[in-house]
Amino acid sequence: MSQAPDASVSAAPAAPPGEFDLIARYFRRPAERALLGVGDDCALLQAEADQQWAISTDMLVEGRHFLAGTDPRRLGHKALAVNLSDLAAMGARPHSFLLALALPAADEAWLEAFSAGLFELAGQHGIELVGGDTTRGPLNLCLTVLGLVPAGSALRRDAARAGDDLWISGVPGEARLALGHLRGEWTLEAAALEHALARLEQPTPRVALGLALRGIAHAAIDVSDGLLGDLGHVLRASEVGAEVRADALPRGPVLAAQPEARRRACQLAGGDDYELLFTAPAARRADVLTAAAAAGTQVSRIGSVHAAPELRLIDAAGRSIDTEFCSFDHFALP
Amino acid sequence: MSQAPDASVSAAPAAPPGEFDLIARYFRRPAERALLGVGDDCALLQAEADQQWAISTDMLVEGRHFLAGTDPRRLGHKALAVNLSDLAAMGARPHSFLLALALPAADEAWLEAFSAGLFELAGQHGIELVGGDTTRGPLNLCLTVLGLVPAGSALRRDAARAGDDLWISGVPGEARLALGHLRGEWTLEAAALEHALARLEQPTPRVALGLALRGIAHAAIDVSDGLLGDLGHVLRASEVGAEVRADALPRGPVLAAQPEARRRACQLAGGDDYELLFTAPAARRADVLTAAAAAGTQVSRIGSVHAAPELRLIDAAGRSIDTEFCSFDHFALP
Repeated sequence: MSQAPDASVSAAPAAPPGEFDLIARYFRRPAERALLGVGDDCALLQAEADQQWAISTDMLVEGRHFLAGTDPRRLGHKALAVNLSDLAAMGARPHSFLLALALPAADEAWLEAFSAGLFELAGQHGIELVGGDTTRGPLNLCLTVLGLVPAGSALRRDAARAGDDLWISGVPGEARLALGHLRGEWTLEAAALEHALARLEQPTPRVALGLALRGIAHAAIDVSDGLLGDLGHVLRASEVGAEVRADALPRGPVLAAQPEARRRACQLAGGDDYELLFTAPAARRADVLTAAAAAGTQVSRIGSVHAAPELRLIDAAGRSIDTEFCSFDHFALP
Repeated sequence: MSQAPDASVSAAPAAPPGEFDLIARYFRRPAERALLGVGDDCALLQAEADQQWAISTDMLVEGRHFLAGTDPRRLGHKALAVNLSDLAAMGARPHSFLLALALPAADEAWLEAFSAGLFELAGQHGIELVGGDTTRGPLNLCLTVLGLVPAGSALRRDAARAGDDLWISGVPGEARLALGHLRGEWTLEAAALEHALARLEQPTPRVALGLALRGIAHAAIDVSDGLLGDLGHVLRASEVGAEVRADALPRGPVLAAQPEARRRACQLAGGDDYELLFTAPAARRADVLTAAAAAGTQVSRIGSVHAAPELRLIDAAGRSIDTEFCSFDHFALP
């Protein structure tokens, strides 16, 4: 992110509020954790020798990841939250982030609200903006996050083992329930909508849980594309299979009030909740529950991992449920 | 970048070529430098204890940073080149990168050419793709690059000192000359256009020069927004001023054949050449030239740094030139 606040040297005449002014006004904060933050060609970062960097990037496009007109404060929260969720799924401690932003126009009210939502969540996680880019273009938010994890402690997708329990944090499916309302697929009552919409627009990244699960959980992934689809990624990477008990999925009152087919579709195939799906040895059940309590996050045991490489969904009576639920795919879906 | 190649476990029916297939086909390469590359929630990276990470992100938007219909192979090159240029300007050695990509459609021919251009340049610099994201949306390329620099050796913008020489690599202005032709501002002859267009669409990041200048140069910046504007960033960060000798700017035959006003505008205010602008003590002139020769890059001494915080542009006779040349601003310009 190039910027030039408080220009006293300039080869240029005074311009209307432009890229550099906007960046300085809304996105420049002093670097505390970085050796060098916003304002040079690159940021400079250094870690302790026994730490590894976890890094991830996510792009949010208007009309695809959020609807036009989404409250910019909530959008600032969400853009960072979905990236923090990737750190959570590795068991990494958030350190810093970069923000590249394409905007149709330099809308100050929008920028003020967006940056407020962004930095509020950043402050909660002690993470700082160290660089970025702004440009004019169709609304697009691309964040890159960096976290730290002790060498060998990351929760990887390929670490699930036969005999592991399968766990999920929180209540999966509520974000998809809100999306269905916004899309006109069904109608929620006001209170249910408010609850579900907050889950869609302001997901809570399970950072504390990811940290608490280091040394306990085997594999972890954040559910962004749908529970079964994301579970499939873990199973393939780990070369194992799993059995999921559909009725073991935690519902909460809002989902519990929905028809079974809708509820099941939201819970199994809906993304955007950013809950953690993880596996842990059956012998560590008590440790998982202690870690979750310490992190202040509900967790539910929803199935088990098996050696046979297939994914089986069963009902309360243990009968197989056929499922057409597929992972969200940004290109395959309409 | 979530992906699921070679699915043997799936809760989903076979889908048309989707996000995961595309990523696997065009962007998945084995990790050699990363501890963990593409395929998990985050990549994992570790550096030697005496190394610092330099990190930067740049977003390229169709119609803003490249014209619709730009050869995708050249675009793949450019998207990485402009990011490598930021590492060059810090004197950092490229290590790895992440790619977030919004595409209007899953166009395989485009992806094949784009990835070929991208990985060709990546291979030249021994840099590997460690993560990313793909989604549907208006064409947008957001890259994040990581490089390594020994602690304390980075070429920072705030390190220019009074008494430094001012240097530029290569021939600045040729990219802007090509852009003017494409915009219909002027017309270039075929040979001149071909030369200038290659500079616009396939800039050479001055990585080798940046590395060679460590321990010799004081401050450095890559010229992406225009020579005078980017110089202004260095001067403000370093709290110094400078005198630039307009006629000391290297021209090459294509620029030399242009009318003076056009040539000067292209050279002083044109961006997109991604040349390195740097300062070095006058006592190190021979070392600068030796470093540049070792890097195989032409450098030219174009002015000097002064304590007085103003930027003065002079002609061959030492007379001041008034200038309206301002830095490119993605929001302030139409």
